[in-house]
Amino acid sequence: MSRIAVLDSTLRDGAQGEGISFSVTDKLNIVRALDELGVDLIEAGNPGSNPKDLDFFREASALELRHATLAAFGSTRRRDIACEDDEGLRSLLGASTPVVVIFGKSWDLHVKQVLKVSLDENLAMIRDTVAFLKAAGRRVIYDAEHFFDGYAADGEYAFASLRAAASAGAECLVLCDTNGGSLPERVGELTARALKEFGLPVGIHAHNDSGLAVANSLTAVRAGATHVQGTLVGFGERCGNANLSTLAANISFKMGRDCLQPDSLPKLSRITRLVAEIANVNFDESMPYLGLKAFAHKAGMHVDAVLKVTQSFEHVSPESVGNSRRILASEVGGRSVVLERMKRIDPSATKESPVVAQVVKRLKEMERLGYQFEGADASLELLMRKAAGKYKPFFELGHYRILGEQPTEGKLSSQALVKIRVEGEESISGAEGDGPVHALDVALRKALEKFYPSLGAMRLTDFKVRVLDSHDASAATVRVLIESTDGDSAWTTVGVSTDIIEASWIALVDSIEYKLIGDIERRYKPYL
Amino acid sequence: MSRIAVLDSTLRDGAQGEGISFSVTDKLNIVRALDELGVDLIEAGNPGSNPKDLDFFREASALELRHATLAAFGSTRRRDIACEDDEGLRSLLGASTPVVVIFGKSWDLHVKQVLKVSLDENLAMIRDTVAFLKAAGRRVIYDAEHFFDGYAADGEYAFASLRAAASAGAECLVLCDTNGGSLPERVGELTARALKEFGLPVGIHAHNDSGLAVANSLTAVRAGATHVQGTLVGFGERCGNANLSTLAANISFKMGRDCLQPDSLPKLSRITRLVAEIANVNFDESMPYLGLKAFAHKAGMHVDAVLKVTQSFEHVSPESVGNSRRILASEVGGRSVVLERMKRIDPSATKESPVVAQVVKRLKEMERLGYQFEGADASLELLMRKAAGKYKPFFELGHYRILGEQPTEGKLSSQALVKIRVEGEESISGAEGDGPVHALDVALRKALEKFYPSLGAMRLTDFKVRVLDSHDASAATVRVLIESTDGDSAWTTVGVSTDIIEASWIALVDSIEYKLIGDIERRYKPYL
Repeated sequence: MSRIAVLDSTLRDGAQGEGISFSVTDKLNIVRALDELGVDLIEAGNPGSNPKDLDFFREASALELRHATLAAFGSTRRRDIACEDDEGLRSLLGASTPVVVIFGKSWDLHVKQVLKVSLDENLAMIRDTVAFLKAAGRRVIYDAEHFFDGYAADGEYAFASLRAAASAGAECLVLCDTNGGSLPERVGELTARALKEFGLPVGIHAHNDSGLAVANSLTAVRAGATHVQGTLVGFGERCGNANLSTLAANISFKMGRDCLQPDSLPKLSRITRLVAEIANVNFDESMPYLGLKAFAHKAGMHVDAVLKVTQSFEHVSPESVGNSRRILASEVGGRSVVLERMKRIDPSATKESPVVAQVVKRLKEMERLGYQFEGADASLELLMRKAAGKYKPFFELGHYRILGEQPTEGKLSSQALVKIRVEGEESISGAEGDGPVHALDVALRKALEKFYPSLGAMRLTDFKVRVLDSHDASAATVRVLIESTDGDSAWTTVGVSTDIIEASWIALVDSIEYKLIGDIERRYKPYL
Repeated sequence: MSRIAVLDSTLRDGAQGEGISFSVTDKLNIVRALDELGVDLIEAGNPGSNPKDLDFFREASALELRHATLAAFGSTRRRDIACEDDEGLRSLLGASTPVVVIFGKSWDLHVKQVLKVSLDENLAMIRDTVAFLKAAGRRVIYDAEHFFDGYAADGEYAFASLRAAASAGAECLVLCDTNGGSLPERVGELTARALKEFGLPVGIHAHNDSGLAVANSLTAVRAGATHVQGTLVGFGERCGNANLSTLAANISFKMGRDCLQPDSLPKLSRITRLVAEIANVNFDESMPYLGLKAFAHKAGMHVDAVLKVTQSFEHVSPESVGNSRRILASEVGGRSVVLERMKRIDPSATKESPVVAQVVKRLKEMERLGYQFEGADASLELLMRKAAGKYKPFFELGHYRILGEQPTEGKLSSQALVKIRVEGEESISGAEGDGPVHALDVALRKALEKFYPSLGAMRLTDFKVRVLDSHDASAATVRVLIESTDGDSAWTTVGVSTDIIEASWIALVDSIEYKLIGDIERRYKPYL
């Protein structure tokens, strides 16, 4: 049976979701991540409706992608105009992608009441647009917007709209459940009919307004569809698009069909989380296959049974999607993960080493405070070193003070004063910054540089703030993640406090210590 | 066609979800809420495995329920023991519910490797238990745990386990997809077969590990099942149970079948949120039908179309489930969104009013700076008032100063000093706080309260920080969202700056001004 092609629309339909907005850098990073996962097509924006997207496409064309092909998305030409005079189509060509996805209307209600053109003109708009893009050398995928609602209203017209696209050279006809209100039965029936009628590959684009986006997509695949659209994390208009991570796992494990690349599924957890992280959206920990809860066992009987036979309460193995099992009620949870990392610091560690138990306990305490080490490997390593006695502080804090004021009239708004001690010698320094964290960062490194000149090469590259359990308003707990680099490598650290300055300070100090430990290891191997 | 009975298991399977734990009062409140919604059966706990549940059942029996019947949940008797000697069964009877739900094993793997009894003894355990409870005057619903996995391993045995329950007097056979790994095809096929073979009502209990719990339940209904189990908000082991709110809406609207009560669906939003609130769990705003995002329109074309014909991008009306439409203001949205809101401030505004064009332009400028007004209705309204000349400042900032130092045992880490002027009169005040934003918030409101005493009733309820384009690290642009309430209503404001203190300040000031405008409007209608 033929493989199932996967089109990810995180950067287009996903960006239409509430609370989602991507910078050009975010978009490039998401393209890289999706390519690493092994997605076939990346629908990366609508250059006609969003001029910023053109900048992105210009930069994206320079990326070297291993698997994925970039696609630009746009609508059929406007009414009563030639394609070559249509601004939207010109922008689409300007994006210079090998593939263009064009959406057109299949529902007479939209044609008459929204577009306000005649039914025939709409068919001509579809035909002309597809033919125009084909003539310009593009591969064209046709999205039949509202196909299922259109079919319910006027089935013949809905199929006529598909015919217009097929006859003009579309390579794939995608049936869209744009409003997300369709049931699987209807989706299966019409997929089969479209396949039979046009002999072209048929795709499915489902929304989740009835909680059925994944089910409708699977039903279409069962009926012969070979192209599925969605967004990796499920972002999208209203309740979102079909969650591609769930869909790809189901297609592979439950239907035994090929999709993505042979090595994709074990990367699914990591890359889906990465995309959510770039979007700065909290990950849904109940997400099928990938959430922290997906293989978490709480009820006593379930825990007992899973410890006897894992499949007793697990439909697939957590490792198959890069996730892991969590036993909520017991201390066994996490130990093997900790051991695996501990071995990098102390190769003699075993599951029975007291230090492993100690780290597991410490991690649980920290997690209760709001720490999360998943994205903060450097802080996790420091925590383990401290437990293993493989750590000594590089400096001692005397104190820091922050001064902020407003209005500033062009001046930087914050000053920081930091006093530290290194082996008995004091160093005090002051700095200005744009905000208190910035000032603190500059002052701390100024105070340390005379002892540790290698810090001169280090800089912060990313800074993320998440408010936890935010219902205490401005006194809520804050988690800060800091990403740093020294040119050779990059690392991430974490700090938690009710005070955002302190949370940032904790992460800053970890970052600097991690850098210094790395420097020493490179120079004096026997340090450990 | 017969109605679909709904069993809610929030208090049993839901309570097995990570992070969920209910007090007796919580449980009683949830029973009341589910009864108000019109649920048929409330599976309220497992008195055998959780002794606290017996207290609850004692209190619950005093509730006067209009629609719902309480059910206790438990397992078949233990091996090699008479039912009357089984502690679990004695607790079940002690709960004194009219209905008892009994689960038993259908999967030979569980019988052999988890229970470690013979296949025949397991059948006897099912038969004996059902018969014992029937003899004690209970209505018995039988949950066939792991029915679909059991069928895949040994189909005859899985059906033999159903036969044991049916022959002993169970009134309904519930097929459970306990691990959540089944596809709809299989669920439909086996539901039909069970119906045919036993001539008893058949039910479905689905988990969401493959994202298919709702779809599997609908497929079972299509195949003849007349009893559906789930949890109203979707709580449950791992990825949760079938979300009953989605399921009930689909059964009613999409399949045209009766379930719940005739007046239930418009209460669905309110009661589902109430249950999430009692569980102290954040509501999933992407939830089908009920999330804030479910009828939120962002992309310009969608907004235009919805304002012309609502069904163009809505599969049902938001009011039908007690939800409402939201038109999001965003760079992808356009003039019609602005107009719709502008009309609330100035009813004479039209698409051609210069003020509308001006607001659209201003919005685009602000969005380029990193503002996002989607979630910040109050700031958007202030921006519009300023453009429309329907605004005057309530105070003038002299200056603020912030002093922070690393937190020391028990003391607050920040102090703020705020000086403002109201109609020429100065007010200065100082305050301490847990972090600089907290201190600033307290100091500002202290300075203003003597002029505007109604601010005493106002407080911040939520505080969100997002770092934008965070690749400049600690000098990155920060967007702060603040949610406030005065008891009567809640509103959200936004501030953006490279300095987190300033961003918070902007959002704080908007929040206070919005509150004061609201107060004036309530008192002096002609203010505008």
